Amino acid sequence: MKDFLYYTPTEVVFGKESEKKVAELVLKYGGHKVLVHYGGKSAKKSGLLDEVCDCLQKGGIDFVTLGGVVPNPRLSLVHQGIDIVRREKIDFLLAVGGGSVIDSAKAIAYGAVYDGEVWDFYTGKASPKDCMPVACVLTIPAAGSEMSESSVITNEDGDIKLGYSNDICRPKFAIMNPERTFTLPPYQTAAGVTDIMMHTMERYFSHDDDMTLTDNIAEAILRTMKESVHAVLENPTDYRNRAQNMWGGSLAHNGLTGCGLTGDWATHQIEHELSAMFDATHGAGLAVIWLSWAKYVYKENISRFVKFAVNVMDVPNDFTDPEGTALKGIERMRTFYRSIGMPTTIHELIGREITDEEIQEMARKCTLNDTVPQGNFKVLRAEDIVQIYRMAR
Amino acid sequence: MKDFLYYTPTEVVFGKESEKKVAELVLKYGGHKVLVHYGGKSAKKSGLLDEVCDCLQKGGIDFVTLGGVVPNPRLSLVHQGIDIVRREKIDFLLAVGGGSVIDSAKAIAYGAVYDGEVWDFYTGKASPKDCMPVACVLTIPAAGSEMSESSVITNEDGDIKLGYSNDICRPKFAIMNPERTFTLPPYQTAAGVTDIMMHTMERYFSHDDDMTLTDNIAEAILRTMKESVHAVLENPTDYRNRAQNMWGGSLAHNGLTGCGLTGDWATHQIEHELSAMFDATHGAGLAVIWLSWAKYVYKENISRFVKFAVNVMDVPNDFTDPEGTALKGIERMRTFYRSIGMPTTIHELIGREITDEEIQEMARKCTLNDTVPQGNFKVLRAEDIVQIYRMAR
Repeated sequence: MKDFLYYTPTEVVFGKESEKKVAELVLKYGGHKVLVHYGGKSAKKSGLLDEVCDCLQKGGIDFVTLGGVVPNPRLSLVHQGIDIVRREKIDFLLAVGGGSVIDSAKAIAYGAVYDGEVWDFYTGKASPKDCMPVACVLTIPAAGSEMSESSVITNEDGDIKLGYSNDICRPKFAIMNPERTFTLPPYQTAAGVTDIMMHTMERYFSHDDDMTLTDNIAEAILRTMKESVHAVLENPTDYRNRAQNMWGGSLAHNGLTGCGLTGDWATHQIEHELSAMFDATHGAGLAVIWLSWAKYVYKENISRFVKFAVNVMDVPNDFTDPEGTALKGIERMRTFYRSIGMPTTIHELIGREITDEEIQEMARKCTLNDTVPQGNFKVLRAEDIVQIYRMAR
Repeated sequence: MKDFLYYTPTEVVFGKESEKKVAELVLKYGGHKVLVHYGGKSAKKSGLLDEVCDCLQKGGIDFVTLGGVVPNPRLSLVHQGIDIVRREKIDFLLAVGGGSVIDSAKAIAYGAVYDGEVWDFYTGKASPKDCMPVACVLTIPAAGSEMSESSVITNEDGDIKLGYSNDICRPKFAIMNPERTFTLPPYQTAAGVTDIMMHTMERYFSHDDDMTLTDNIAEAILRTMKESVHAVLENPTDYRNRAQNMWGGSLAHNGLTGCGLTGDWATHQIEHELSAMFDATHGAGLAVIWLSWAKYVYKENISRFVKFAVNVMDVPNDFTDPEGTALKGIERMRTFYRSIGMPTTIHELIGREITDEEIQEMARKCTLNDTVPQGNFKVLRAEDIVQIYRMAR
């Protein structure tokens, strides 16, 4: 079993009308002048943004707003945010939205207290010593950024999407009201749950197979997500299952599902190239890539895939044919993805055939010209990743 | 589903040789002069206390030691600790031991920064505004105090055992090295796991039955603990299963297993009187009381007990006889407790017949003269608690 650190300091305030506590929480964590960061129409249209700003105003907290975060959040907006924070003497960042908004806020939080270029943290050229306080009002269960130490930013200059992780950016508080997710469209709902499940699966597919406690918790989360996503697709205002998705999203990525395990993360890395190049929805891209990744790597540890098939996908265990059982688990995952409206090929994801040149380019970028292999379950070179993209066509 | 708060700021450093990081962690959390608080022989005999003190010394951190914490930790030692903290200008409390030592440290941490009597927090006469930083090197997986907000202290003046909970006392860090639990005797090992399981079960037996995610995680923890305690009783140096017990102890009581649920806690309250009056081992007392409590209350929500029987105790579900299935679950728990050497009657626990006068006195104390009922699954008056003690004789 691997030694581990577990650190989840974020105060979670979960439930109906929890957004009404936003001013009180900002004050508790030392905020006096807030940058309210958000995305596009939905935060405005739903009235949430106005409610949050109202609440801050009534609480006597000064604020400035910065909208316009898009999925695969852009470095250029991060730079704008840094300028505003400095100019307006902001001391607290409040993200109102989903993972992209929170990730963008984290990047601003790193950059605003750093003299150099914030992108250097993402490329590994520099390490932050400090970070402004970040918190969020979550509207999309998916990325898990509301409790996590990670942030993923896309540099438009070259379509490079890179993640950076550091405990110092973990949000101070996360407000989660499942009612605020009632209006999430089916595709975003399903892509979100796919991302949630993948955060668990990236850790679950590990060669450390002696931490049964973590495995059992991971399987509990995966089984619950599978059920609850079907329930909310049938009835978008099902509070109970929206709540399960929302809380599952945080637990899947706050570190809990990785205690004692190595983790793989190749599916995420391989997908990042797809969403950077085609601006595809991250969760949907994960569905496509995981199926292909799983078929490419399952022989590395068939028993792990058998465990997944039996304990998560409810495949009857054929003890005489472990490989068959493992493969049935992967096939059942394909059926599940289809049942929630996720694509299972790159063609379905991007709406056209992908070319071999594009595949080669993505594989090169993903491995920094074959200098940085990806994954742990099976360590993948550029040529492996080319195969995985091809199998996903 | 109940709204909930989830706040677990404790930095967990888990694994082999993790105690070597103690000085670095004390400095990280602002400690300069430490009170090292511990229990009796075992911390000394094992060499752990010396190693911790050595590490502090090498890290340039001044410290004072205070040993002598006993199970059901005493208020008198808390008072001594408060005096030392003030006299020696201590700014950090480090507990080296199990739940009793951590609970005692938390009480010192409240009391040292309060002008009045610390016991007033436990009786509800006053509320703390502040608390000194507390951290721990854990040696006994059981109480969960290493990540929890609670502390239980016994006032020898009247054998009154009371708990107090407040987020401000959650430890800054918890060092957990499963190897340090190898020497734990079988009775303490089993009583510890009984306590761990009960922290989950107190929350699980709830009338809120719509938070499947929390239920599934709770069941995952319970099933893992059941298996791992047998493994470590067979082989005390089984690192993997000692680790699962240790981490399970933290997860069972850091709040995770209660998200969205009301919780009951009657078994703990009823047991507290037993261990206060007879100085019984808390975990062993819980085994005795839970069986009796379960038989007394199961009709309040038979389906919940059926779920427990089937999903945790592996009872085949007899769909034609829910009550029979529920009762089989309770009986299988009795068999489990016996299999790990836990008592299942008060006679076995305290070594003699309990008198009806003693029962009446405990029930009176437990309900503050029948003014404060206990529990939520079924709200229990003094007369109910008398019945539960009698059924447990």
